[in-house]
Amino acid sequence: MQRLAAALRLSTPTHIATRRTIMSGPSQITLPSPADFHVHVRQGAMSELVTPHVAQGGIRTAYIMPNLVPPLTKTEAVLAYKKDLERIAPKTEFLMTLYLHPEVTPEEIRKAAKAGISGVKSYPRGVTTNSSSGIEDYGVYYPVFKAMEEEGLVLNLHGEVPSDDEKNISILNAEKHFLEHLRKLAADFPKLRIVLEHVTTSEAVECVKSLPANVAATITAHHLWLTIDTVAPQPHHFCKPLAKEPKDRKALQDAIKSGNPKFFLGSDSAPHPSASKAPSISESGELHACAAGCYTSPYLVPLVATLLESFGALDKLAGYVSEHGRAFYKVPAKAGDELTLRRPATAVKVPARLDGAEGIEVVPFWAGKELGWEIVN
Amino acid sequence: MQRLAAALRLSTPTHIATRRTIMSGPSQITLPSPADFHVHVRQGAMSELVTPHVAQGGIRTAYIMPNLVPPLTKTEAVLAYKKDLERIAPKTEFLMTLYLHPEVTPEEIRKAAKAGISGVKSYPRGVTTNSSSGIEDYGVYYPVFKAMEEEGLVLNLHGEVPSDDEKNISILNAEKHFLEHLRKLAADFPKLRIVLEHVTTSEAVECVKSLPANVAATITAHHLWLTIDTVAPQPHHFCKPLAKEPKDRKALQDAIKSGNPKFFLGSDSAPHPSASKAPSISESGELHACAAGCYTSPYLVPLVATLLESFGALDKLAGYVSEHGRAFYKVPAKAGDELTLRRPATAVKVPARLDGAEGIEVVPFWAGKELGWEIVN
Repeated sequence: MQRLAAALRLSTPTHIATRRTIMSGPSQITLPSPADFHVHVRQGAMSELVTPHVAQGGIRTAYIMPNLVPPLTKTEAVLAYKKDLERIAPKTEFLMTLYLHPEVTPEEIRKAAKAGISGVKSYPRGVTTNSSSGIEDYGVYYPVFKAMEEEGLVLNLHGEVPSDDEKNISILNAEKHFLEHLRKLAADFPKLRIVLEHVTTSEAVECVKSLPANVAATITAHHLWLTIDTVAPQPHHFCKPLAKEPKDRKALQDAIKSGNPKFFLGSDSAPHPSASKAPSISESGELHACAAGCYTSPYLVPLVATLLESFGALDKLAGYVSEHGRAFYKVPAKAGDELTLRRPATAVKVPARLDGAEGIEVVPFWAGKELGWEIVN
Repeated sequence: MQRLAAALRLSTPTHIATRRTIMSGPSQITLPSPADFHVHVRQGAMSELVTPHVAQGGIRTAYIMPNLVPPLTKTEAVLAYKKDLERIAPKTEFLMTLYLHPEVTPEEIRKAAKAGISGVKSYPRGVTTNSSSGIEDYGVYYPVFKAMEEEGLVLNLHGEVPSDDEKNISILNAEKHFLEHLRKLAADFPKLRIVLEHVTTSEAVECVKSLPANVAATITAHHLWLTIDTVAPQPHHFCKPLAKEPKDRKALQDAIKSGNPKFFLGSDSAPHPSASKAPSISESGELHACAAGCYTSPYLVPLVATLLESFGALDKLAGYVSEHGRAFYKVPAKAGDELTLRRPATAVKVPARLDGAEGIEVVPFWAGKELGWEIVN
């Protein structure tokens, strides 16, 4: 805790924003090299647009999801993707993952480890964007997990089971039903580092807390703000896992507020063309479901600072956006790689849209809302 | 139950639909004059478009909601609205309601009763479309409810309390939290007929079952099909109350299947311009919430027949769409006013959109999906 407080290097106010009559707390914050341990930077024109946004949002190290089309199931494919990302954003450090799939064998894991790949992402089949190649049964992957444990790769879990009307499993309780799988994996692989990604429920927070130190969880920025009341009427707020009740959001906020190092930033920032977020009719005349995901990368650290301040956890910012995740992943911050935030002198708003090549348009999360912090350097 | 079965007048199959290889059950159903005890027919150009759809969907008697802009709080305003609806759709019987509001006094209730107004609709403040004039406390309306009890007016309740983060009240549990108000009203006004509108939870179904015969509930068509999994990704499925878990949908289906006369059709069919169902950005650059409501009027009885058949309750169709509601409201079916449905010889699909004057466009519920029944007469 002392280390975190020191890391924040809280400064006294040096200026007062013109549009604010009341200001308290620091006017500037310097953070050790921020890292986002769950990012989607896509492919093609979308990747060209969004990959530079990671650095723009204050993130130095990005842990990259493998749910491309086709999914990244081979070391060579991951390395080629990494090379492409480094071409687009040469200053960002990319940590890479494989997509858990029958092609990911223990041999592939050893190859991946040698190539510097950091982890393996598991998507239960069909629960979110590009998860149709996802897994149905963890038992068959035990030899893979054993190899990961030995090689030091991290297992990243999308923690939802598929919906099932007969069993009353829906996107409301899919995460709770997943926790038994997490407990079993944690018991069976005590040395495997496991991350339950983008937790959204008080039950998931409690479960992760109760498990040994090899199990951690990421928390997104958007789940610190959304609840079902703001998700249901707004496709741009629709994400998987779905944001749930106020008590669940409070559990996420409290996990950060507690300073528990098991909880750290994984934004799950996931851009979708705005057309895929609007109702549209298929050729057969039926309605398409809107795509799941919120996009926060271009202003991620300022957004996170704004949100943490809103629930009285600004002093936990360094732990949440840098130290806890870096410690868990064993990716230390580099010296001289700090990020400084300040209170904006004039209002800084999230843009209403972001435009890329080939007509790509993305509406970011919090579009039009005012951020309480901006990046200095 | 015998009466219901007789009312269905089940016929033997007379033709086989070309696109169906397996067919069972009746090929034709004749229903006593169907009634929809919860309909929104709006104002202006929208009303011109949608009011005729009520009859088109097989409904002879429509119980009309008063949440116009401004809300209908005076008998004269209700009568003027009724006259306008009768001009647009002369063959439909309109049962009218007042909007519960400080202007609705016991004197206004007596006036309304003399004028033939059937009930009073209560909207808790801010919970759905045009509810900003809704009520905050039932206590102040006890003299009004007393007058309604004496005059035989029905109290229609939108059964949700406003969301409250501190109390963990969200649109997921707003209906459950409302049930204590329903129980208290039922206990305090044992002779007042009360309808809990558009029930969506197993708890609400159980509560209504447990209360005396003066308390009933409407069930919409869309809540017999939707769950949270199909609502969250699709603004055209967003409605208040929100569709919830599979177990809740099953409770609604089972309430109809049981033949309990406390449960009957109130479609809550609520047209919205399709633009209000798509994500849009305000002048300040922020995202607008999409409007709440599903639109089912133009094909309501065929849709309901299709849905009831899907869960094995086709033999309860007459009770659900006519007899139970008519008995509760004391609005008997007229002789010679039957509706006959048949299985379509060729596929009948719900249209992808409906166009009105002044550029109005509405995307109906189940757009592009195939109906299992069509209206003969």
